[in-house]
Amino acid sequence: MHPDEFRRLGYQIIDLIADYRATIASRPVWSQARPGEMRSQLPATPPEHPEPPEAILADVEQIMMPRLSNWQHPRFFGYFPANASLASLLGDMLSGGLGQLGLNWQASPPLTELEELTTDWMRQLLGLSEAWRGVIQDTASTSTLVALLCARERASDHSQVRGGLQALPQPLVVYTSTQSHSSVEKAALLAGFGRDNLRLLPVDETFALRVDALEAAIAADRAAGRVPCAVVASIGATATTACDPLEPIGAICRREGIWLHVDAAMAGSAMILPECRPLWQGIEQADSLVLNPHKWLGAAFDCSLYYVRDPQHLIRVMSTNPSYLQTSADGAVTNYRDWGIPLGRRFRALKLYFLLRCEGAEGLRTRLRRDLANARWLAEQIDATPHWRRLAPVPLQTVCVRHEPPGLSGEDLDRHTLRWVGAINASGAAYLTPAILDGRWMARISIGAEPTEHADVAALWELMQATAGRE
Amino acid sequence: MHPDEFRRLGYQIIDLIADYRATIASRPVWSQARPGEMRSQLPATPPEHPEPPEAILADVEQIMMPRLSNWQHPRFFGYFPANASLASLLGDMLSGGLGQLGLNWQASPPLTELEELTTDWMRQLLGLSEAWRGVIQDTASTSTLVALLCARERASDHSQVRGGLQALPQPLVVYTSTQSHSSVEKAALLAGFGRDNLRLLPVDETFALRVDALEAAIAADRAAGRVPCAVVASIGATATTACDPLEPIGAICRREGIWLHVDAAMAGSAMILPECRPLWQGIEQADSLVLNPHKWLGAAFDCSLYYVRDPQHLIRVMSTNPSYLQTSADGAVTNYRDWGIPLGRRFRALKLYFLLRCEGAEGLRTRLRRDLANARWLAEQIDATPHWRRLAPVPLQTVCVRHEPPGLSGEDLDRHTLRWVGAINASGAAYLTPAILDGRWMARISIGAEPTEHADVAALWELMQATAGRE
Repeated sequence: MHPDEFRRLGYQIIDLIADYRATIASRPVWSQARPGEMRSQLPATPPEHPEPPEAILADVEQIMMPRLSNWQHPRFFGYFPANASLASLLGDMLSGGLGQLGLNWQASPPLTELEELTTDWMRQLLGLSEAWRGVIQDTASTSTLVALLCARERASDHSQVRGGLQALPQPLVVYTSTQSHSSVEKAALLAGFGRDNLRLLPVDETFALRVDALEAAIAADRAAGRVPCAVVASIGATATTACDPLEPIGAICRREGIWLHVDAAMAGSAMILPECRPLWQGIEQADSLVLNPHKWLGAAFDCSLYYVRDPQHLIRVMSTNPSYLQTSADGAVTNYRDWGIPLGRRFRALKLYFLLRCEGAEGLRTRLRRDLANARWLAEQIDATPHWRRLAPVPLQTVCVRHEPPGLSGEDLDRHTLRWVGAINASGAAYLTPAILDGRWMARISIGAEPTEHADVAALWELMQATAGRE
Repeated sequence: MHPDEFRRLGYQIIDLIADYRATIASRPVWSQARPGEMRSQLPATPPEHPEPPEAILADVEQIMMPRLSNWQHPRFFGYFPANASLASLLGDMLSGGLGQLGLNWQASPPLTELEELTTDWMRQLLGLSEAWRGVIQDTASTSTLVALLCARERASDHSQVRGGLQALPQPLVVYTSTQSHSSVEKAALLAGFGRDNLRLLPVDETFALRVDALEAAIAADRAAGRVPCAVVASIGATATTACDPLEPIGAICRREGIWLHVDAAMAGSAMILPECRPLWQGIEQADSLVLNPHKWLGAAFDCSLYYVRDPQHLIRVMSTNPSYLQTSADGAVTNYRDWGIPLGRRFRALKLYFLLRCEGAEGLRTRLRRDLANARWLAEQIDATPHWRRLAPVPLQTVCVRHEPPGLSGEDLDRHTLRWVGAINASGAAYLTPAILDGRWMARISIGAEPTEHADVAALWELMQATAGRE
């Protein structure tokens, strides 16, 4: 495609995106498509000859866009805010246009150096000490896998360069809570520990990891001849944004020589607010940390920050150094290929750079404080209203709630919950995620889409009462 | 950022990209920046207040762009073509703008269904049977790791849900050639096999895996009580694009119950040309296959296709199913989160979709045939010129060459090679990758950047002769 043709079509794409975002509130929040419906409208065989780009754009507008789930809708309260702010998107588009590929420093010095810079800017904004070095990964799932691989290698004196995990005399064990994200279990299994060596420990009434249970599990494993290897603590657990107590957990990990990885995928963004930092007090005792600016902070997906205190260990676990990747600059520079799983790397720092410079730290703090206030307001309404029950503390922007009409319990209550949540989601007027907490279904309301204002939360609360009451 | 502000700045970004691509031939091919030079020109602390987007764009143009390595330059002959074609880029920009996040089918039906469609279109274009199902991963490094994890779990009867790799009575072994990509060794180590259980087998005079060496290694491991688990065969090995003989390797793997993964990251794109398919004859006997349309085919990075014949096994290895990710559509739809490591997924199919529809299969075939002809032409010049030696067959678009002046050998020859290759790269007039083959440095010329025409290859050959001769 000639650059002039790209310019013409690029403008059209920009218009399409700007119009979509400007009119998003008029669309249903969540897709009402049936499985296979979209695919059946597109040809089953690939195009043999070039097609006019206008025809492709028309298919996007007519076949795809009516079936989107609109994550940036002001009444999107599902999963987590994935803002893909337009400021960040500018940087992401530029990243594609410059076509850089960070195989090593020399393959794109700006890619590497802007990643060093922006991860350090974020470190400062989060209030972390200078001991941390950061890298951008795709997702927290990957970052947590990298953390457990590093923990495995530290505990096994780098067994990977000998007989691997297969040759260890005693099994290594990983600890986390029942409330940790599914990616923790997935990472432990993929890293080869085996489910028998993963301890899902109980939580207290705030859904935080019970320190006494952790101590007891470690002692029992040691007594049985197993080797405690890693603890994964959650700051902002998925269901309720519960925060595990890092200070006592960190002390145990230091005493026992255990790797401490902190999964702050969602809640990490909140740490740009000094008033939220008590939630992760003790963070400096961790070995690794992941948080996703592509969630609440507003960066375009994918932008997961992985911080470590010992980059040399990370590099030793991840490094390969074939001749075709060596350059004369090696030794004087950072080669991020040795900081994660993929070799090729996109210029992802640009989307974080544009976000931070366009919005400014103060602008981001203001937006996050708006969301915290909206969540507190909703929690107060729920607490003050009969037959509605808030199921967990609201330390951040997520509210867990159930409507409990008199006489309903057990599976009847589950059916009621799934019915009113499903009715709201099917209406297109709002979207919230049904999830299980303590064995029962509940509604999980995650506040913080970029355009979500107080009026949107108030409208949701009206809708909840009207919908649940009608059942 | 308001959509109108985005529209204004988006046009500027489009112009910047179009101008960059239109004038790229006038830039030095490879970055001549010094380590730290770019970073030192940017503030060490993050911006507290919003900054004018024009100031950010000015920094991009003045501080970053002069220090880029220009992968889309017509005289880029390094690593591999990473075309990031502008047609594909349109789809990638749209992907960001729509802000979709594929946690499950319902979170974006178009994201999932277009990925099903485009991976199937590619399957057809590659001449693969209907037995294959595809998914888009970020890179071949990740795809190969996924393949070895799946091999590990098949060979161990899904040990991950019990004691993991730690509990196996006999070690599992992985086989590949000395010419395979560094990501194969990395994947084997990360998957926990250990370097002691990775066999780097010798190659023949075409740099293809020696089947007799594979058979002997398998027999030796069995005799020693170890369990052969996986073979990773290369179609288009990194240094020379050598192709391992899949037919006999596949027969051995079937007979022995060994997983066969095929790394066709670079050369897979060539299989849209029927005349190239003999290079991977026997592919239908593989269990998994990776190829990167973000290389020669022209898709914007990152777009790595991973194909499997048994998706249920892949899902069993990768699946997690917490309540908050369940939807009523489960069972009737594909949930790609269970096809790889990350949970969150970008709408990556759009960039492949735009590429295939804008260029058409015939357009892509024509471009790849142009590159094959250019490589053959260069090989002929080298073969016909005294003191130049072609070091490997040229089945595709990569030419491995050394200038061998009379009397030079050993380390003197290495110094000569690194000197003339370094001089070309430092000149900014072209870029090629120095690499080691059979223990000696050589120049590896990878042809196929989108704008590279015959005149560019002819100019390179002139430059090589002038530069090496002057030394």
